[in-house]
Formats: sequence, C-alpha cells, structure tokens
Amino acid sequence: MNPEPRLENLGEDAVVSAITCKLPKGPDVRVGAGDDCAVVGPKDARHWSLLKTDAMIEGVHFLSETEPRRVGWKALCRAISDIAAMGGTPQHALITIALSPKTPLRWVEEFYDGLKAAAKQHGVSIVGGETSRSPGPAFINISLTGTVRRKECVLRSGGSPGDILFVTGTLGGSLSGRHLDFTPRVAEAQFLASKVRPSAMMDLSDGLAADLPRLARASGCSFHVDMAQIPKTADCTLQQALSDGEDFELLFAISSRKVRQLLAPWRRAFPKVPLTRIGKLLFIQESSTVLHAHGYDHFA
Amino acid sequence: MNPEPRLENLGEDAVVSAITCKLPKGPDVRVGAGDDCAVVGPKDARHWSLLKTDAMIEGVHFLSETEPRRVGWKALCRAISDIAAMGGTPQHALITIALSPKTPLRWVEEFYDGLKAAAKQHGVSIVGGETSRSPGPAFINISLTGTVRRKECVLRSGGSPGDILFVTGTLGGSLSGRHLDFTPRVAEAQFLASKVRPSAMMDLSDGLAADLPRLARASGCSFHVDMAQIPKTADCTLQQALSDGEDFELLFAISSRKVRQLLAPWRRAFPKVPLTRIGKLLFIQESSTVLHAHGYDHFA
Repeated sequence: MNPEPRLENLGEDAVVSAITCKLPKGPDVRVGAGDDCAVVGPKDARHWSLLKTDAMIEGVHFLSETEPRRVGWKALCRAISDIAAMGGTPQHALITIALSPKTPLRWVEEFYDGLKAAAKQHGVSIVGGETSRSPGPAFINISLTGTVRRKECVLRSGGSPGDILFVTGTLGGSLSGRHLDFTPRVAEAQFLASKVRPSAMMDLSDGLAADLPRLARASGCSFHVDMAQIPKTADCTLQQALSDGEDFELLFAISSRKVRQLLAPWRRAFPKVPLTRIGKLLFIQESSTVLHAHGYDHFA
Repeated sequence: MNPEPRLENLGEDAVVSAITCKLPKGPDVRVGAGDDCAVVGPKDARHWSLLKTDAMIEGVHFLSETEPRRVGWKALCRAISDIAAMGGTPQHALITIALSPKTPLRWVEEFYDGLKAAAKQHGVSIVGGETSRSPGPAFINISLTGTVRRKECVLRSGGSPGDILFVTGTLGGSLSGRHLDFTPRVAEAQFLASKVRPSAMMDLSDGLAADLPRLARASGCSFHVDMAQIPKTADCTLQQALSDGEDFELLFAISSRKVRQLLAPWRRAFPKVPLTRIGKLLFIQESSTVLHAHGYDHFA
C-alpha cells in the first residue's frame, strides 16, 4: 500500500492546486485563487476591489530575536507589494496576531509601530483585527484590500508569446536583512499599470526561479531567460539571485512594441531603480530555460 | 523595578486597547477596530463594505483530533457570524492555512470540504488565500468581506439607557461539540436589521459575561441582567451559560417601544429559535449587574 501523501511529499504548488479546484465563486469574482490578489466587482465597473491575505510565522518568515518593529513593517509591506503588483492602491488592513501569553506588551507595541509606519507611508487604514493566544510560535496574518482601475488591472495570466520580460531592482541577498526593510514598489507598479500596461505582472516573493514559471504557466507560455542579464544584488551569486526569495521586486511582461515607450520614461521617473530586460515569453510548445535553482517552497 | 508587563498579566481587552490607539485611518473608515467588523465606504453611500478577520489555532480553538471538515465549517461560520451581527451579507473569503509539512493531504482536502459547504450554504465566494508551513500548531485565518445597506448597519455602540436586551437561542454547552457545527444567525440578524433596527448588536463568541460588558461599554451604558431569564442550553448551569463562550448567538438592544413589533413577527419568521429578553441597558452612572463569571480571555 502506498503511504498516505503528506504536504512535504507534494510541494506547495501541488497542494495549492489540490485545494483550489471547485471553489464556490459568485458572478462578481473576476479573479479567484492563483494570482497575487483576488479581484472582485461587476464586470464593467470603473474600479475593482483587490483582496489579499498574507501570513508570517515565527521561525519561518522571521526569527524570535528580530526587532518587532521590522516584523510589523515587513508584514504589511508584503501584502502591499501584492496589491501593487496588480496595478492597485492599498486601502484597508486587518491584523491578526497569535502570540504566547508570555510575550511582553512592548513587543506588541513595537510590532504595531512598524505596521503603523508602513501604513502611513502607503496611505493604508488599519481598521481592525484580532489577537489570540498561540501555544507555539507567533503567527501574524495581514488582510489587505485595495482598489484598481479596471483598465489598469494587471494579472499574471495576460502574457503572450514574444512578450519581453523585465524585472525591477536587483535580485538575491534578502536573507542578509533586506527582506525586513524593503519598500514595496507601489509607485513603480502604478507607473507601469497606467503608462505601459504590462500584459502580465507579479511581485517576486519566492524567487525568480519559482515565480517566473508561475507567471509563464498562468499566461499559457514557456519562457527564455538570458542568465547573463539577471540583475544580481552586490555580492550575490546567480544562484542566490534566482532562489533567495523575498526580493519583492516586480516581474512583468510587455509587448515588444512597447519596450521603447517604457525605457526612457522609466529612467526619468525612477532614475535610481534598475529596470532589466531578462528574457521573453515563448509559445508553450517551446522549451523553457531550465533554471538550475529552486525558489522557496513552503512544504519542501 | 517592576517586571516588564506581559500579555498574560494584562488580559485581552487591555492588550487590544493598547494596540488599537492611534491607528492610521482614512476618511472612508466608518468603524475601525473594536466592533464585530470594520465598516468602510463613503459616508452617504447606499451600501458599505464590512471587513472581518478571524483566526483559529490548533490547541486553542480546535483539537488535533477534530475532524477537519468540522474545523473548516467552523472557521468560515465564525467569520460569517460577525458579518451577520452587523446586519450584513457575507461575500468573499480568503483562507490562510499554516500546517506542519507532515500533515496528510487528506486533512487539507477535508478541511476545504467543510469550508466549501459553509460557503455554499451562505453564498460566500472563496477567492484565494495562502498556504504556509507551520513549525508548531496548525494556524487558520479567515478573512471575509461583506456588504450592508447603510441604513441597516448595526453597531455595538448604538445602545441607549432603557433599551431592552435580547439574546437568540440558548447559551452554554458549546464545549460539548456545538461550537463545531453551529449555523450562524444570518437570516435572523438580517430580519432584525431590516425590520426592527436594533440600536446595538453583536454575536456572542466569548460568552455573555465577557461580551455583554463590551456591548454596554461601546454604547456608553451600564446594564441590568435578570439572571433567572438567561436561556440555558439543556443540562447547562447558569455559570456555563454565562461563560462557556462560542455560542454564536445574537445579543442585541432595542428601544423599549419596539419590543411589541419584534416579538410576534419573530415567532412567525423563526418559530424554532428562542428569543429571550434578558435585561436592559442603564445610564452609565448606575451600576451594572455583577456577572459572577468570566467569559473567555485569550491571554488570561
């Protein structure tokens, strides 16, 4: 008899596929599970709502000795990054924390200081949440809503063969601390969504090696990556750039005829943020570049 | 030197007060932290949005041996109960689960079966979520949106001295299993919100002894309770009825002149659901009934 399959034998993407089939979905759901955020609203509305939930767990996403202010900042900024990656503006956050009863009140206050700083910087209202006891590690969950103009909403699934792939910033090195202090690319994503209309976009949370195949798959494409072009953070290897994860940079695809109208305006708007052409989407029949690296898998 | 205060020394309400002061809040926030749900939307809109987040933790809200289908059902129904308690209709749910990599896939599938059953019964769309690894107990978080007609939105804070207090159903005994299989009072709450307009309403999740003082405090009132009137579940003591928690019944206040227009229509609409007058709200200067029992406190 085969042993019963456990999450560790399957990997995150297989688990997600198993649970997201046949979910109940009303007629106002534009995009359900599988993109950076859910998108809801009437088909022809001027604005749609974006919904995101994101968890951080002590020992997985942060360490018990991490300064709580940085944990709070990161927790909200991770969710903001997902709203941004759809071309949206973040609006309302709900905060769930489950903590050991031994936790000092000061930890909670400083954690909230970090949350509030991130909220103020990005115009987010913190409208509630819930506190509970955890008999184990600390759990944090952020629920965040956002809004996006229908015509500027960018999904993962809109890419076409021939579209050019770009990433913002540099990749790798998050483990040295960058993952706690990053600023989500909200302005950059809104610039892209309103001026250039990428065909597909997502934020890089699990590393290019895990996330690019997801974008390509959602778009029904294969992909080619020019390894020499991957923008590596200083002192990072290619391997790290591909697989460290938590870069929170933007990965997007645009039609090749739009590349020219992207580059000069980008440099004027964001002179300090590198924008790098790393490859292109291919027909699904073509073979994808083999990324000799794996992004982060929660269950592997 | 005093020892540094820890959550266990403070209790849940004090912790919540400490963290919810001075939260960033935009002009579209009608109700922030402190009610069953957050309420957002333009001041004079016909409908407002409701936002709720709710966590369940293995070893706190359910046991590892509990059937996963019942865990899923309860997880979503808890949040639906909060949307209902504002007079609202639940809409879109996001599901976060953090599980040990050793968890059998079957557990996750059955948990989702319970979620889907609750979602279908209440017209909720499951629009996404996130899966993660937990190095400790299983952690579940449900984020749920809803909608409410502005004129039917019932807060905890609208009660006035003299208003009569009612509860639906019977209280106590949740620990014998009822807490896993309850049906949230959505139809009953919508009936109340549209036909009777309670001045204040909430769902009973931590027990009447913890929750009634919260409703009274939010309304700036004291309260009187006639202990003999508390509707006890069969085989429950008064103590259990006051403090078991997880009843998920409705507690509401209505102006005394509306009592007559409540009772007969209620019996016609919900012949099987008891509705019990348990007391009234008082001026804040008067002293509240002492509830010789404590509801559930997460950090005590």
